[in-house]
Amino acid sequence: MGLPIETASTLTDINDLQWKNRRVLITGGLGFIGANLARRLVDLGAEVLIVDSLIPQYGGNWFNLDGIRDRVTVNLADLRDRHVLPHLVQGRDVIFNLVGQTSHLDSMTDPFTDLAINTEAQLHLLEACRKEAPQTRIVFASTRQIYGAPAYLPVDEKHPLVPPDVNGINKLAGEFYHLLYHKVHGLRASSLRLTNTYGPRMRVKDARQTFLGIWIRLALQGKPFEVWGGEQLRDFTYVDDAVEAFLAAVTPATEGKAFNIGGFPPVSLSALAGTLIAANGGGSVVHKPFPPDRKKIDIGDYHADDSAFRAATGWEPRIDMPEGLGRTLDWFRRNLPHYWQEESLPP
Amino acid sequence: MGLPIETASTLTDINDLQWKNRRVLITGGLGFIGANLARRLVDLGAEVLIVDSLIPQYGGNWFNLDGIRDRVTVNLADLRDRHVLPHLVQGRDVIFNLVGQTSHLDSMTDPFTDLAINTEAQLHLLEACRKEAPQTRIVFASTRQIYGAPAYLPVDEKHPLVPPDVNGINKLAGEFYHLLYHKVHGLRASSLRLTNTYGPRMRVKDARQTFLGIWIRLALQGKPFEVWGGEQLRDFTYVDDAVEAFLAAVTPATEGKAFNIGGFPPVSLSALAGTLIAANGGGSVVHKPFPPDRKKIDIGDYHADDSAFRAATGWEPRIDMPEGLGRTLDWFRRNLPHYWQEESLPP
Repeated sequence: MGLPIETASTLTDINDLQWKNRRVLITGGLGFIGANLARRLVDLGAEVLIVDSLIPQYGGNWFNLDGIRDRVTVNLADLRDRHVLPHLVQGRDVIFNLVGQTSHLDSMTDPFTDLAINTEAQLHLLEACRKEAPQTRIVFASTRQIYGAPAYLPVDEKHPLVPPDVNGINKLAGEFYHLLYHKVHGLRASSLRLTNTYGPRMRVKDARQTFLGIWIRLALQGKPFEVWGGEQLRDFTYVDDAVEAFLAAVTPATEGKAFNIGGFPPVSLSALAGTLIAANGGGSVVHKPFPPDRKKIDIGDYHADDSAFRAATGWEPRIDMPEGLGRTLDWFRRNLPHYWQEESLPP
Repeated sequence: MGLPIETASTLTDINDLQWKNRRVLITGGLGFIGANLARRLVDLGAEVLIVDSLIPQYGGNWFNLDGIRDRVTVNLADLRDRHVLPHLVQGRDVIFNLVGQTSHLDSMTDPFTDLAINTEAQLHLLEACRKEAPQTRIVFASTRQIYGAPAYLPVDEKHPLVPPDVNGINKLAGEFYHLLYHKVHGLRASSLRLTNTYGPRMRVKDARQTFLGIWIRLALQGKPFEVWGGEQLRDFTYVDDAVEAFLAAVTPATEGKAFNIGGFPPVSLSALAGTLIAANGGGSVVHKPFPPDRKKIDIGDYHADDSAFRAATGWEPRIDMPEGLGRTLDWFRRNLPHYWQEESLPP
């Protein structure tokens, strides 16, 4: 059993030692970042409950728990099933809220599913917390997508919010709910606006998490991968750094606020392709123009100013791109079949 | 029958003469602003279809069509009934989209209804337009509430968006959908961020549209009305000016953009109370502190900079507060029973 809520409510910053026996809920915990976070938390001694819907197009994958399956509790559920939420949040010291529909393109072809998961379900979760777990800490996984095409670089948290797609609009509403429930209801919520995050356990079937997933898979398979455009600047966060950001966010200094999470200086996609090929010891690239449906919702260059989060928490990224890509390739070289199966041929 | 869509699609600015036989849809058309807009449009010769749900807590009122009932078509429907939407938007030259849950306080106690109407239903409407009426003009009724507590005055459209309540978050998402569907799908949509709007046919039962409704009713009934705080600055738009703003917004110059709509220089609530009492020829005020549940979501002073809309369209407000309050009081003096019935006593 975890600590009683009364103890949790007196927490200030939580350092590594203080995670022991903490009752943590990770929504989307079978997914890429969620599962990496779960792995770190069980190593720190936390009592981890994972909720995941295992929607095939999303990031959930049982193999993400390989080696820790008996050290976490998994409750399969969809956060749109609002009646389960009060039961799942009850007694939780910390909630890492990573459930989300992440595909920008899918949000344009099916905006209602995106709305139901990224907006409505978030409101249900917060209502459940308000009623059943008012002392819990909540860290929400938001996205740089809410800024839209940057008006200046690097993008700080004061940048205008001009979401370029339905996903960005719905995620923004989901984030705003968290901040509002802090202000009005006193919920201890904060939000991290993530940029491209990559690393072991990422989705590599398609570009629904980031295009880098496909690149990594194709490089490992010895196939050429496509670079659309190529001059766009992007920054990237290695997943271990993202995990540390989520842990660091559990501090009163972040409550009621939203922070950018970045990484190392941005690189052009063409340069990134070169780094990937070097880390892989080989590979080839096909340069193509942007497909029209993606061009319409592309944001151009992006680079996060994450100095506010660094100042508030002391967090900083540690794994740069060459190192991170090397680790990711090594990991997927051993584990790719768990993330990619060639389609069976029809009988 | 109205003009064929092909003709509508070649419109540039629509001046008064050009409204003749235009096929117009007004969502929320039995409500306060919607019905005033319908009255103006039938006078201009437009063919007006009204859609309204007549939810008792909202602004819809059959009496709002008094005198024009046989000159408009009314289709009672709730925009959450998404299957009716494709049929309602088909063949419409212009859609004035005024459906909304307007109560800030209700949005905090029932956030899901607010989300369903102000966000999800808007997305269904836009999807219907995209598929069934891609050439239609759409003007969305947004709100100053999306800015939250002003960081500076007057508030222009570049002001940060920090919605102070669930209503503000959901309305912002609804507005963003309109602008996005312009950018990505080419829908000819624009948005007007309204401030307090007042005049004949406003809701006076309660503060769900604006506190000024209650003030006007109580002043007419010879009862004291409550001023909470009193020093807050607010600006106000007389409904005829708001109606002209909606008509003026039907021009290519506004497409894909959101504009503030204001009025005359702002007044403090205490000064407004004095103006109302003078216009009414008498009345009395009780000064009270803000109730806690409203204080939490109050925005303090607000004053719109609407110069962008004036520059884009030539619109300007014409009716100042003393004149507007006088007209409103005169009108409700004759018609109050249609907007206020004392509760029957239990038998």
